[in-house]
Amino acid sequence: MDNTVLLEDLDAFAYREALASGEAVVLIPVGSLEQHGPHLPLGTDTALASRIAVGVATRLGALVAQPIAYGYKSQQKSGGGNHLPGTTSLDGASLVGVTRNLVKSFLGQGVRHVVFINGHYENYQFLYEGIDLALEELGLGSGSDTSVLLLSYWDFVSADTLARVYPAGFPGWDIEHGGVLETSLMLHLAPERVAMERVIDGPAAALPRFDRLPVVPGRTPPSGCLSSAAGSDAAKGRLLYEQVVGDLVEDLATELWVAPMGLAVPA
Amino acid sequence: MDNTVLLEDLDAFAYREALASGEAVVLIPVGSLEQHGPHLPLGTDTALASRIAVGVATRLGALVAQPIAYGYKSQQKSGGGNHLPGTTSLDGASLVGVTRNLVKSFLGQGVRHVVFINGHYENYQFLYEGIDLALEELGLGSGSDTSVLLLSYWDFVSADTLARVYPAGFPGWDIEHGGVLETSLMLHLAPERVAMERVIDGPAAALPRFDRLPVVPGRTPPSGCLSSAAGSDAAKGRLLYEQVVGDLVEDLATELWVAPMGLAVPA
Amino acid sequence: MDNTVLLEDLDAFAYREALASGEAVVLIPVGSLEQHGPHLPLGTDTALASRIAVGVATRLGALVAQPIAYGYKSQQKSGGGNHLPGTTSLDGASLVGVTRNLVKSFLGQGVRHVVFINGHYENYQFLYEGIDLALEELGLGSGSDTSVLLLSYWDFVSADTLARVYPAGFPGWDIEHGGVLETSLMLHLAPERVAMERVIDGPAAALPRFDRLPVVPGRTPPSGCLSSAAGSDAAKGRLLYEQVVGDLVEDLATELWVAPMGLAVPA
Amino acid sequence: MDNTVLLEDLDAFAYREALASGEAVVLIPVGSLEQHGPHLPLGTDTALASRIAVGVATRLGALVAQPIAYGYKSQQKSGGGNHLPGTTSLDGASLVGVTRNLVKSFLGQGVRHVVFINGHYENYQFLYEGIDLALEELGLGSGSDTSVLLLSYWDFVSADTLARVYPAGFPGWDIEHGGVLETSLMLHLAPERVAMERVIDGPAAALPRFDRLPVVPGRTPPSGCLSSAAGSDAAKGRLLYEQVVGDLVEDLATELWVAPMGLAVPA
Amino acid sequence: MDNTVLLEDLDAFAYREALASGEAVVLIPVGSLEQHGPHLPLGTDTALASRIAVGVATRLGALVAQPIAYGYKSQQKSGGGNHLPGTTSLDGASLVGVTRNLVKSFLGQGVRHVVFINGHYENYQFLYEGIDLALEELGLGSGSDTSVLLLSYWDFVSADTLARVYPAGFPGWDIEHGGVLETSLMLHLAPERVAMERVIDGPAAALPRFDRLPVVPGRTPPSGCLSSAAGSDAAKGRLLYEQVVGDLVEDLATELWVAPMGLAVPA
Amino acid sequence: MDNTVLLEDLDAFAYREALASGEAVVLIPVGSLEQHGPHLPLGTDTALASRIAVGVATRLGALVAQPIAYGYKSQQKSGGGNHLPGTTSLDGASLVGVTRNLVKSFLGQGVRHVVFINGHYENYQFLYEGIDLALEELGLGSGSDTSVLLLSYWDFVSADTLARVYPAGFPGWDIEHGGVLETSLMLHLAPERVAMERVIDGPAAALPRFDRLPVVPGRTPPSGCLSSAAGSDAAKGRLLYEQVVGDLVEDLATELWVAPMGLAVPA
Repeated sequence: MDNTVLLEDLDAFAYREALASGEAVVLIPVGSLEQHGPHLPLGTDTALASRIAVGVATRLGALVAQPIAYGYKSQQKSGGGNHLPGTTSLDGASLVGVTRNLVKSFLGQGVRHVVFINGHYENYQFLYEGIDLALEELGLGSGSDTSVLLLSYWDFVSADTLARVYPAGFPGWDIEHGGVLETSLMLHLAPERVAMERVIDGPAAALPRFDRLPVVPGRTPPSGCLSSAAGSDAAKGRLLYEQVVGDLVEDLATELWVAPMGLAVPA
Repeated sequence: MDNTVLLEDLDAFAYREALASGEAVVLIPVGSLEQHGPHLPLGTDTALASRIAVGVATRLGALVAQPIAYGYKSQQKSGGGNHLPGTTSLDGASLVGVTRNLVKSFLGQGVRHVVFINGHYENYQFLYEGIDLALEELGLGSGSDTSVLLLSYWDFVSADTLARVYPAGFPGWDIEHGGVLETSLMLHLAPERVAMERVIDGPAAALPRFDRLPVVPGRTPPSGCLSSAAGSDAAKGRLLYEQVVGDLVEDLATELWVAPMGLAVPA
Repeated sequence: MDNTVLLEDLDAFAYREALASGEAVVLIPVGSLEQHGPHLPLGTDTALASRIAVGVATRLGALVAQPIAYGYKSQQKSGGGNHLPGTTSLDGASLVGVTRNLVKSFLGQGVRHVVFINGHYENYQFLYEGIDLALEELGLGSGSDTSVLLLSYWDFVSADTLARVYPAGFPGWDIEHGGVLETSLMLHLAPERVAMERVIDGPAAALPRFDRLPVVPGRTPPSGCLSSAAGSDAAKGRLLYEQVVGDLVEDLATELWVAPMGLAVPA
Repeated sequence: MDNTVLLEDLDAFAYREALASGEAVVLIPVGSLEQHGPHLPLGTDTALASRIAVGVATRLGALVAQPIAYGYKSQQKSGGGNHLPGTTSLDGASLVGVTRNLVKSFLGQGVRHVVFINGHYENYQFLYEGIDLALEELGLGSGSDTSVLLLSYWDFVSADTLARVYPAGFPGWDIEHGGVLETSLMLHLAPERVAMERVIDGPAAALPRFDRLPVVPGRTPPSGCLSSAAGSDAAKGRLLYEQVVGDLVEDLATELWVAPMGLAVPA
Repeated sequence: MDNTVLLEDLDAFAYREALASGEAVVLIPVGSLEQHGPHLPLGTDTALASRIAVGVATRLGALVAQPIAYGYKSQQKSGGGNHLPGTTSLDGASLVGVTRNLVKSFLGQGVRHVVFINGHYENYQFLYEGIDLALEELGLGSGSDTSVLLLSYWDFVSADTLARVYPAGFPGWDIEHGGVLETSLMLHLAPERVAMERVIDGPAAALPRFDRLPVVPGRTPPSGCLSSAAGSDAAKGRLLYEQVVGDLVEDLATELWVAPMGLAVPA
Repeated sequence: MDNTVLLEDLDAFAYREALASGEAVVLIPVGSLEQHGPHLPLGTDTALASRIAVGVATRLGALVAQPIAYGYKSQQKSGGGNHLPGTTSLDGASLVGVTRNLVKSFLGQGVRHVVFINGHYENYQFLYEGIDLALEELGLGSGSDTSVLLLSYWDFVSADTLARVYPAGFPGWDIEHGGVLETSLMLHLAPERVAMERVIDGPAAALPRFDRLPVVPGRTPPSGCLSSAAGSDAAKGRLLYEQVVGDLVEDLATELWVAPMGLAVPA
């Protein structure tokens, strides 16, 4: 039963038993509430990170905490920009603060490893900073037998999968916002929340090599997506999901239970 | 369909239309991930605040944002204490920061009123501070036609309801943590997440009139609850839920669409 | 002589001797500079907290530090609102910061117990947060032989006292701002600072069950008080003061010198 | 009557009238709780700043707010060091925060000018920063008809006064901590709080031209004072007090009511 | 003369004239003090960003401010890790704060456009946040005729240049730390600061797809570089420098003096 | 060769060797980007602090880190005011943050002593606070065998030097901004950056004994300097430089390698 991995559904006594092993792993999905065009829901990033986390946790025997459902400000070159309606963001200090608190709270309770599964590009550095500050406060340095892992799920998409999802060539992660990857994943995982008939097709956004602030709104395509979702389907989503979850399970299993400290991860 | 009130399920274009009326109201549930004894899930506060928000929003034509799922540190006199496993908390600055950001983000998008529905006692003052700082930054003062409301749902439980839920006399809000009110509400709203057979019965906690820090753990009952959940049932939960949602709908409707500024609320 | 309990009047060498016992207790009164209607001075909360602290310290052999004389923002439902002239407030971060610093500073000097005596409702959670952050930085956890206590003096008013002060029934703490309790206490402790002839009589404020920000100024009675001070007298003040100080002395004596760690406080 | 200048003793309605003129001036004394040797009380800095503020306000028709009674960390070269018992300090952020809040609060209420009267050397830059941040938030720039003044009272001691107080030559402000100036002022203003028989005589401290942290405790004289208080008397204190208050009154009167903006102060 | 572009070498009166045009552009190089293996100096990132900024400014008629010489914490996957000697870093809040202050300060003086030229991967998001917070405080939104640009210089390396610098195929930006790109640029711009004979050759680092904290030190190659600098030469550096500076000049000229607001940048 | 003392020019392996002795000393120059009238460059403070640091380090065998090139807000009474074009400042929190990070970073790497060489009056207290916070976080207290020193270089100008540089009498440090001391030092150390023909002669500024904010711009002389640079020459600069560097070398050598802890510094 999927439910058993959700921390919010566990009672405190059952959770205490889970901690007693000394091997508890908690996954924290991180997303955003962010416009994803007319065909995807505002909660896409959080939904994808959460579903992937549940998939990984189920196979791994880990727990999934409530997601961080609001993310760092959407940037024009990766998410269309923070000025678009629906995009509801945290500043850096707040996201760092939440992250820092969760790490300190979970490790303080006796969790062995915390893993952040990120689904919103802009979050990464602030999550990193929150983790680093927490470990410094906890006095944990190299050689510690507890750890925090941070990753974005798309970094686990293999070259082979990419080639199959984008038969005409992968256009690049930078314009994958509301595009084929996210839409296909949603079609696989939550088809009732996708409206393919509302997809606005057209060329990908052509953005400058710099960020300009305040943003020039006209540079974001009217759809709010940086590339077209046309061509998305549930089969691609299933492929992406299965491959990514599979790789995550393998990497985390190796890293958190097997890999001796101080050695390079096997290729 | 309940779903239509959830912001995370809306697409950006539909949301933009909702904003266009100039009358959009967004409810934000606020809870905690906190031990609630052996019979209630860790996510009880968030679940209750969310369900009440959905109930209100559905009748009111409002939207419900993703909850703030982690709350301020549990205090011994209202939640058993922050030292108990499962209790996973934010410090004050982080909760203030998140609140401040959400208010600024939603009002900046054109939302007319934001309403925080609180389900975790310890949050209240930090939510208040976050709201106040946001309004100061936005330059909104008395006479503004947008507003932010803050409330804890239990403040809407009527004397009559209390008398029916606690026929032997209401023991006081201060020890209602994991007790009859929360348990009955959960039995009504999410019975599959309650394990009545795990309830630990016994006398309510007798706590001093001061807070002591570091806490003396032995002062919290072994159950982690401040009063017994024995006597909880779904009918009481239904009564509580319907009365509270009803009162909230009435108060919010009066306040946000009718009440002329500067006048006292009718009794 | 009262003076001997005031830290500001002690010289450093005498204070060092007080610390040498290892048993020094420092009380810190916390108040506000806040409008209290036309009949009470702006410094009422600070004055009451300070006088109660001196009363307790004198009987207990403790020291009284300079008060925190400015408090958190006045809220409409407990203090009439922060928009009223004379109300001069700190934001949450500043009050947390001051509290955190005082705890660290006093415990760092060798004080055994610090006790905050609060006289302004809105302060409580920020004082709590400041204390908690300080203890975390100091690395003090459960089992420590030093402690910090936090309390609001009105939580020590007994039911019997209430019944005698409010013969027609206690209207509730929420509207006790500038009312019979504070006015009677001032009439007992500092009659020259009260102008009973300026009391504005009238019904108590009827405020909604939510906080609205920005506040609707018209909801606060013109007096700035939430209930009438009519009926206050020095005898009630004396009763309140003696009973509260008596209970505080008893509770603190029991807690700080006698109560073995880990046991519940005797009823 | 001195009392009329103390804001804490004013009621809100009287204060509102004072504001109505549009010319209200509020003085805020700033001190510290800091060791001043065996002969002066810990509250010396706050006491002196407060008494000078009351003297100035009485002659000027200004109001005196509650002092900021805790100051920035004592530094070895100006106050003996923050490690000494009795020295109870705020960090920079807290002092900046309190200052910023008071400026915003008073100017927001309609006070025309706020004047900080500093009595603890280490405070100055943090008060300055708090004022500057507040004015930036309030959007007040050059040409504003409200202002905030910041000063340390010893900068108003004239050369003539110095020559009379130190007939053998002024040893320099840097070692005037617990020395002849502060002690004489206290002998004039609060003789019952001075114990001349406890003065530890001896040569002034010889401190390096740098600050070293962590401090080398042995560099502070055992008395905690940086120069001897021997030779202090009430007559010197009276001379200092009268000259300083006189100059302050003259400068503030000229600056706040007469001096046209944009011109240099007359010599 | 190169010097004329350096703000630190300008006098205030000359600078005031530069501002008078209303068209002043200030470039701010951002780097780090970070280990770059045995063959490159610790100041490599700052040196490269500064030299590129001077090259751009000279051709563009812009000014170059003092660099931000310390950067955000080095991360293992992009810079070897923050644990390595020589790596001297700022936390996120400090880098955000410095950035925010510089933007506010320069725009407040009348600078029309500020351009951050980043040379240390880890900085980017914190620079972005600092810029965004500054613009919010200044009240500048879309449509403003002043702007702040943010870019990392390597994003301006063209595909053609890459192909010529890495004839055997570009291994990816993620492992370009102390590798052929940085080393070649330094050989062109500051050959006296490179010790090619100290280059440690060997395979590129193979790092996991996640970040692990605390870092596992053994995963960073002993050289501290993520790929080998073997094969670097000054000609490649010249090519990189000329192409990047050329593109930057073209893009900035188009963007800051020509491009009408609201239109997409020409391809 | 001067270069060998610059940390930015060292490679990580050479630096690691320097640390291995356990005796590494790192000097950090701190300046500002601040108007210094029409005859001195904006970078004067940073240039002077850096050159003095290099002079000291060369003779002492210490290292010099990249300067903190932006300082705290210029104050009217010491630097003419923060409103003047060219003056580009940090707020207090940012300067504290940078300082705190550098101390933690260098001491964490194994540096034995860090010495801040300040060249901008307004910085001092914020540097002090940053150092103090860092040491607290590192858990270093009195008796530690590592230390941080903080000094302003002008505190090392001897009375004899002053008499020779100002034959007509020293006008006081408070108005030495862009005056004879800084100008002479620049004429000695960087004559190509001084334009003596642009010096604006005239009487020194006559500023009030208080700070007023917002500043009254007319109180700063049109030159932006607080006293005239007329009479500056390279010989005076050489005298100042040699005497100050000599004294610094002597004091630091005594303090950091010889002086036993806990004893007063020899006169």
